[in-house]
Amino acid sequence: MWPGLEALPWRWAGGAALGLGLALLVRGWRRRRAPRREVLFFPSPVTCPAALLGEPGSAPCPCPLPHGDSPLARLLRRLLSARRSLELCLFAFSSPQLGRAVQLLHRRGVRVRLVTDADYMALPGSQIGRLRQAGIQVRHDQESGYMHHKFAIVDKKMLITGSLNWTTQAIQNNRENVLIVEDAEYVEPFLAEFERIWEENDPANYTFFPTKKEQK
Amino acid sequence: MWPGLEALPWRWAGGAALGLGLALLVRGWRRRRAPRREVLFFPSPVTCPAALLGEPGSAPCPCPLPHGDSPLARLLRRLLSARRSLELCLFAFSSPQLGRAVQLLHRRGVRVRLVTDADYMALPGSQIGRLRQAGIQVRHDQESGYMHHKFAIVDKKMLITGSLNWTTQAIQNNRENVLIVEDAEYVEPFLAEFERIWEENDPANYTFFPTKKEQK
Repeated sequence: MWPGLEALPWRWAGGAALGLGLALLVRGWRRRRAPRREVLFFPSPVTCPAALLGEPGSAPCPCPLPHGDSPLARLLRRLLSARRSLELCLFAFSSPQLGRAVQLLHRRGVRVRLVTDADYMALPGSQIGRLRQAGIQVRHDQESGYMHHKFAIVDKKMLITGSLNWTTQAIQNNRENVLIVEDAEYVEPFLAEFERIWEENDPANYTFFPTKKEQK
Repeated sequence: MWPGLEALPWRWAGGAALGLGLALLVRGWRRRRAPRREVLFFPSPVTCPAALLGEPGSAPCPCPLPHGDSPLARLLRRLLSARRSLELCLFAFSSPQLGRAVQLLHRRGVRVRLVTDADYMALPGSQIGRLRQAGIQVRHDQESGYMHHKFAIVDKKMLITGSLNWTTQAIQNNRENVLIVEDAEYVEPFLAEFERIWEENDPANYTFFPTKKEQK
């Protein structure tokens, strides 16, 4: 007989409790770590975004728009979950609701960086000027092809990407898709692509070639 | 002593072999089931697609194009892996390489169905007419908004989606992304979206409204 064997039932109970605790811990950790995988399809009905974009605790919006859920409301919620950083790589950006969401994140102290297409940054109703005026860092491409991406990265962990340009036309009228993705196999290459485009289009490194007229 | 205990080492060995076999089986199964998660970024260098699109065993192509890997070659390879079905939901389709790949799959007996945008199906170099002539089922939307999706579903298991329109301009000049996805959380909603659009645009159910002139 080993010394202390009389305490065996207590040891068993202690071991079982420890095992159970560990199992619950691992289960909780795995639950927290389960990557979000979600698809939104558009066109989206127009719903009131006031509850998402307003001050917490403010009175319910009296506007006649429906106040329920919609693909646009879900897209806004995912974006507004940002706490630290938001990378935006957007061909066209003219949706006022999405513009207000980005400005709100900027005011909350989230580091917002935006790359857009040079030809489409001045489309009617473009949000780019307003975001720049609000102090948000904006860069645009300098290539002959289009900067045709339409993605956002929230807190370097959640990728929002698809066919949807951030315009009212696309949100309300087109057949579009948006994927919400947390798998690192997608998020990391998109982050690297963002950093590549961001650095390539740093205005400090612009090369100003003489125009054809000046070359003469 | 239990009867037969003298055979214990053999039992152990048998049990261990059984356990090892089961572990290998589960490992192999999990390997086969690991969903593919891949990202392709464009623009893509122009590479020769002959080895992918030609007859098996034919002589190497003597053309001066590079014959290595490229995002376009990888996209072609994923598409050409189809054995039973290919659903295509494409805003614009004018890439001759991708057109050849779809025709090749049709000739191999893969069931190809294609939905495209009514306004963009006649863009210069459109593949839609050729695919129809080859006997592929094609439908187009009838809505005022665009059918702006750009996705393909291979054998109802692999989703190929992103910002990339299937045009040479987009492939060779634009900043674009394509995700290769096998997670059911994405594939199933996209399949349902395809079936919805396919049924909605069945020509047998077209309603022909009188034009404004006829209403007078």
